[in-house]
Amino acid sequence: MASSTTDQPALKVAMLGCGVVGSSVATMLVENADDLAARVGARLDLIGIAVRRPERPRPDVPVDPALFTADADTLVRSADIVIEVVGGIDPARELILTAIEHGASVVTANKALLAEDGPTLYAAAADRDVDLYYEAAVAGAIPIVRPMRESLVGDDVQRVLGIVNGTTNFVLDKMDSTGAGFAETVEQAQALGYAEADPTADVEGFDAAAKAAILASLAFHTRVSSADVHREGITEVTAADVQAAREMDAVVKLLAICEVVRDEAGTPSGVSVRVHPAMVPRSHPLASVRDAYNAVFVEATAAGELMFYGKGAGGDPTSSAVLGDVVAVARHRLAGGHGPSESAYADLPVVDMGRAMTRYHISLAVADRPGVLAQVASAFAEHQVSIETVRQRVLGDGDDSRASLVIVTHLASDAALAATVQALSGLDTVDEVVSWMRVEGA
Amino acid sequence: MASSTTDQPALKVAMLGCGVVGSSVATMLVENADDLAARVGARLDLIGIAVRRPERPRPDVPVDPALFTADADTLVRSADIVIEVVGGIDPARELILTAIEHGASVVTANKALLAEDGPTLYAAAADRDVDLYYEAAVAGAIPIVRPMRESLVGDDVQRVLGIVNGTTNFVLDKMDSTGAGFAETVEQAQALGYAEADPTADVEGFDAAAKAAILASLAFHTRVSSADVHREGITEVTAADVQAAREMDAVVKLLAICEVVRDEAGTPSGVSVRVHPAMVPRSHPLASVRDAYNAVFVEATAAGELMFYGKGAGGDPTSSAVLGDVVAVARHRLAGGHGPSESAYADLPVVDMGRAMTRYHISLAVADRPGVLAQVASAFAEHQVSIETVRQRVLGDGDDSRASLVIVTHLASDAALAATVQALSGLDTVDEVVSWMRVEGA
Repeated sequence: MASSTTDQPALKVAMLGCGVVGSSVATMLVENADDLAARVGARLDLIGIAVRRPERPRPDVPVDPALFTADADTLVRSADIVIEVVGGIDPARELILTAIEHGASVVTANKALLAEDGPTLYAAAADRDVDLYYEAAVAGAIPIVRPMRESLVGDDVQRVLGIVNGTTNFVLDKMDSTGAGFAETVEQAQALGYAEADPTADVEGFDAAAKAAILASLAFHTRVSSADVHREGITEVTAADVQAAREMDAVVKLLAICEVVRDEAGTPSGVSVRVHPAMVPRSHPLASVRDAYNAVFVEATAAGELMFYGKGAGGDPTSSAVLGDVVAVARHRLAGGHGPSESAYADLPVVDMGRAMTRYHISLAVADRPGVLAQVASAFAEHQVSIETVRQRVLGDGDDSRASLVIVTHLASDAALAATVQALSGLDTVDEVVSWMRVEGA
Repeated sequence: MASSTTDQPALKVAMLGCGVVGSSVATMLVENADDLAARVGARLDLIGIAVRRPERPRPDVPVDPALFTADADTLVRSADIVIEVVGGIDPARELILTAIEHGASVVTANKALLAEDGPTLYAAAADRDVDLYYEAAVAGAIPIVRPMRESLVGDDVQRVLGIVNGTTNFVLDKMDSTGAGFAETVEQAQALGYAEADPTADVEGFDAAAKAAILASLAFHTRVSSADVHREGITEVTAADVQAAREMDAVVKLLAICEVVRDEAGTPSGVSVRVHPAMVPRSHPLASVRDAYNAVFVEATAAGELMFYGKGAGGDPTSSAVLGDVVAVARHRLAGGHGPSESAYADLPVVDMGRAMTRYHISLAVADRPGVLAQVASAFAEHQVSIETVRQRVLGDGDDSRASLVIVTHLASDAALAATVQALSGLDTVDEVVSWMRVEGA
């Protein structure tokens, strides 16, 4: 699919960073140059790649070694389009702001920066009438930023449930298929390259929280930053939790959840944005997302249920998203105009986790004698929590026999559910609250 | 999520048609007016709705009855944005061209018109520097047009497999779950409102073929019209075919397939665009698309495998897509610029069905005696078709006993596979070619 590119105009493209994603972007810019030129209507000339050590040999990156430079600041001042794939907060923020100030459009994959300080960047881009595009920042190759900020912009998004971190999905999927525990499975993931040597950002949910903040901002036309996101990782998920999920025909997933919270009249009064493990019924489309794949499930008033599925990380998938954005902003530079700016007019408050409406799966070890269930049920009733199902199993026999009680609740405020768990642990008939986990997607 | 709209600029919106989709679009324009104004940066003023009988009472559409008019031609000349949801080729084409000529941007859901004569419309829009958007034309609420023409435009799409017709997916899914035949299931679908009184456009694959043409045009930067699409419907799919699929752990789906065809050196030499029933392994993400849902599975070089899932039809889901486009084109009118124009530079030929590379599932009734399999295998070998699996089952016993042979092939040209089936039916040891069906997504 090539075409002649002679006599075409050209746009100057600068890149910041040349790690896994950057190498792939540079390779695609070179190898697909003719197709990209035909799609844009102008050649994309790579004018430089800013890296810490420009002299280091990079045989895998098919560009003139003279393009590598340590002087990122000078580079971004002369570009039409700056691709930022260096990651982290600083110096990425300053470089992006400098690029915008000098009139460049910016394509970034930097979720951490956008989730921490996006509005500063969006405002700078709007002031200078340039584009700031970031499809690659959420769920890698999966088109989700553009669908959220353009395709669904005439609808009202009610809820987003996302599997947006491949490492944790790989670990939880393997725990489900092998029955192994968390620590052992993370080691396996590390050996296979699915988890970093220090897996904290993934397993503690920091990566997913940044993506949740970006998704919520887009979905609800409201500013949400990483700090607003309630975050629980998967380090406490046990083989027993996964087994308990299996018994109710569910799987454990780390979900990024963004949803509208309504007052009693049904008017939106806030948004809940959170990352935590949850049991998801196997009949739900998200339950079938295996290995390190990502998926984002969206519920909107008119559209109904939508799901977007694909690879959430990796050099080539992320590059696909970056280059889609590069073509879009390049077309804008030729045809005039720019893509959508930040939309934050709704300005809804982010509510505390306690006000989120959730369901709990609670597993109790109790005495096997008359009246126990009544006492347990009373604890739920006192906190206005309604029970959906109870499953009781007797363990052992005789006077001292014990039982296991597994309870799934209806929707209630997370605060009421947490208080119920607290109250249950204080009952004399309850030996132990063996585990509890939220249930989503039912 | 409302905001004040006083003193905002306004854009004049005209609508053509007020059926199921039009009623929903009009209702959303009115009921969500404040949110839409905040997202666009201007009010969207509905200036008229062209319908055949303007005097007919429409109590479900919450607009001033004076807005209804029979004079579509005059209406489109004074609009900033024209929403075309009247369907069909004429007069939709003339009205869209008139609207564009008078400087309006157009949002349409008209797959039949785009698949028949899209390039005329795209060229007119490009000449006048206005937008022609059509997210709703393919797969209803599912964002797929925008991802194909914007998100994946930096990548190379290799294959698209789409379940893009809800009626046929409903019928095939019910045949799978009930074991019933085609005619009976279509009647059930009609009773439930999932199939029209005259289901021809759906069950014969015309609707899916129009969508395949649009998807292929976008995926391969090549003009593809409905007439180029090889089309087979589902009317010949029997309960036995569905049962045969079950036996190989597959389901039957009507697929819209768009794929690059390569020459022996691996260079793209054409595109295959086709609609036909196919067996899809249950492990493939498309197999779990139930009821009347739609899904589009995309394979791209860098992005890998992606899937987009949701509701493919209905008033509200289609309106969601229409209004997303309305907001996009309205933003362009305010900020300047426009969205992507037609990209057809690759200009690859659409190849005959015979050159498509497919796999066949073939079921034969044969004599149960030595040498039969050898004779059958020779017929495949003569046509250069390689066999993946053979399953033989003896039916009855004694001298006259018969056997069933189920064969699944490797990839071969459809012409070679069809010739093999022809040859098999002429073998004296073959009583009957009981059925054959293509296999996709393996």
